[in-house]
Amino acid sequence: MLSPEIIADKVTEAVASISYPEKPIGLYAPIAYTLESGGKRLRPQLTLAVCSALGCDVDRAIDAALGIEIFHNFTLLHDDVMDSADLRRGRLTVHKRWNNNTAILSGDAMLTMAVQYIAKTPAGVMPEAMKLFNRTAMEVYEGQQYDMDFENSNDVTVEQYIEMIRLKTSVLIGCACRLGAIVADASEDVADAFYDYGVNLGLAFQLRDDWLDTYGDPLIFGKQIGGDIINAKKTWLLINAISEKREELLDILAEDLEPEERVRQVREVYDRLNLSDRCRDLITKYSQKAISSLDKVKLDADAREYFVSLAQKSIDRAY
Amino acid sequence: MLSPEIIADKVTEAVASISYPEKPIGLYAPIAYTLESGGKRLRPQLTLAVCSALGCDVDRAIDAALGIEIFHNFTLLHDDVMDSADLRRGRLTVHKRWNNNTAILSGDAMLTMAVQYIAKTPAGVMPEAMKLFNRTAMEVYEGQQYDMDFENSNDVTVEQYIEMIRLKTSVLIGCACRLGAIVADASEDVADAFYDYGVNLGLAFQLRDDWLDTYGDPLIFGKQIGGDIINAKKTWLLINAISEKREELLDILAEDLEPEERVRQVREVYDRLNLSDRCRDLITKYSQKAISSLDKVKLDADAREYFVSLAQKSIDRAY
Repeated sequence: MLSPEIIADKVTEAVASISYPEKPIGLYAPIAYTLESGGKRLRPQLTLAVCSALGCDVDRAIDAALGIEIFHNFTLLHDDVMDSADLRRGRLTVHKRWNNNTAILSGDAMLTMAVQYIAKTPAGVMPEAMKLFNRTAMEVYEGQQYDMDFENSNDVTVEQYIEMIRLKTSVLIGCACRLGAIVADASEDVADAFYDYGVNLGLAFQLRDDWLDTYGDPLIFGKQIGGDIINAKKTWLLINAISEKREELLDILAEDLEPEERVRQVREVYDRLNLSDRCRDLITKYSQKAISSLDKVKLDADAREYFVSLAQKSIDRAY
Repeated sequence: MLSPEIIADKVTEAVASISYPEKPIGLYAPIAYTLESGGKRLRPQLTLAVCSALGCDVDRAIDAALGIEIFHNFTLLHDDVMDSADLRRGRLTVHKRWNNNTAILSGDAMLTMAVQYIAKTPAGVMPEAMKLFNRTAMEVYEGQQYDMDFENSNDVTVEQYIEMIRLKTSVLIGCACRLGAIVADASEDVADAFYDYGVNLGLAFQLRDDWLDTYGDPLIFGKQIGGDIINAKKTWLLINAISEKREELLDILAEDLEPEERVRQVREVYDRLNLSDRCRDLITKYSQKAISSLDKVKLDADAREYFVSLAQKSIDRAY
């Protein structure tokens, strides 16, 4: 398998090599701005890594990797409009730097660009890749819809929350992995194993995000700690707290408190319920599930190490 | 070739047979609402008609026809958000009946649904259909971007305007026709001929829309006459008038006039420039171009009659 550094470089090069028509500038400049803004590039790296781990030339997987990365960035762009978010990766969001209409239309174009890259995957596997990609996209929209629905409800169960993040976040990471297997002409079992790996990795990553927003080190995390509590965002922590200390929690959220005071009071409830440790246990569980699904695939030591270390990182990453 | 009535019925049945997941209702109800709201269904009928005219079973073309119709309705849904339009086909637009976020997300899902239908076209032709569909979608977004750019400019040339409506409206009608030819395994020449037919038909239809908005019979047209003038929308008529009577036109548009008075004054300039007749001449020219492109295809009399009468309708339709 190629080294993690080479895989990361291949992704960086591929994203940098995307060319945009010159006109109309109002359509393409925001797309370039969005795709150039970085991020971890986790998904396209996974596509190439799975392909490489299965002994296949990663150049076969570049188009699929770009399709997934462009789709992911399209969802962020439209989500930022829906959430009225001002910043993304330390820069103004597209609808802030330009306007809502530009963000909507450029996002639409990114979705079609993503499909164009999926359509360029090797002919023998393209129909399967396309089917997986489209089904996953529909699931991502469903997840986003549930996320918006949950904003207005205090009766969200933990199971519903997990299903929401599975749809909104995890299936796309599963899809990224599975595309690498599809392009490598892997068997259905191997594709399933990598898909399960990606979905469980995604659940661990999202729960770690929830945890870091409350318990992270502000100097390392790079975002304001407690933002989710201030916005009463339905995270795994808050949903559990509401379900176990309903009256108390809803009273705190209904009060007109200073942000820091709200964070302090909600955290105090979290602490009494031991939610930090319980959340970390769940993250560990999903991370281990991700690792066990690799047992079904014959992998060289360096390939296994790559995927295992990524799953472990989801347990202890600080940003 | 199947009769126009049977083709229309096939489209109606196919749209009615689309099934939507039950949950989340907030995502799928607006999609069903949009697709059930009717419209002329011109594009999917063209796909089936071309397929049938070429002697091919129209059932092969149903998925492509649905893909085009869903894509078209997706563009209307997102355009209505961008234009803050309240009504579409006599009903509240999705962002008015629900909200902007619902309209954005449901629109995204419709775009992916459209791609799913294109992906279901017969395997031998799917890659070509997919490529055409995606390229056309990008052109449609470019057209929409130019349309938005033109709102803020008084220096739009007639050529730029024609290129804008070609991208925003006509290429999708060309694509609908060409998909029928692709599904029927037609030669490149035949596909080109039907594409040209569709593009020119689309130009004629759009220009007739512009003309009807100013010169239509309000009782038949079903929309307020003069809406484009009131909103200073850059139509073929207004762009010509600005280019030929710039000072006078910009003075009228800058004045704080009652809507009816603005319509009266602008129409008076149009009349002096004979723009009504000149616009109708141009519509006739595109309609005739559409008809001549059919000369390159061997067609039965009834098939030719179908496409010719549609082109003629674009000259004299009143609504």
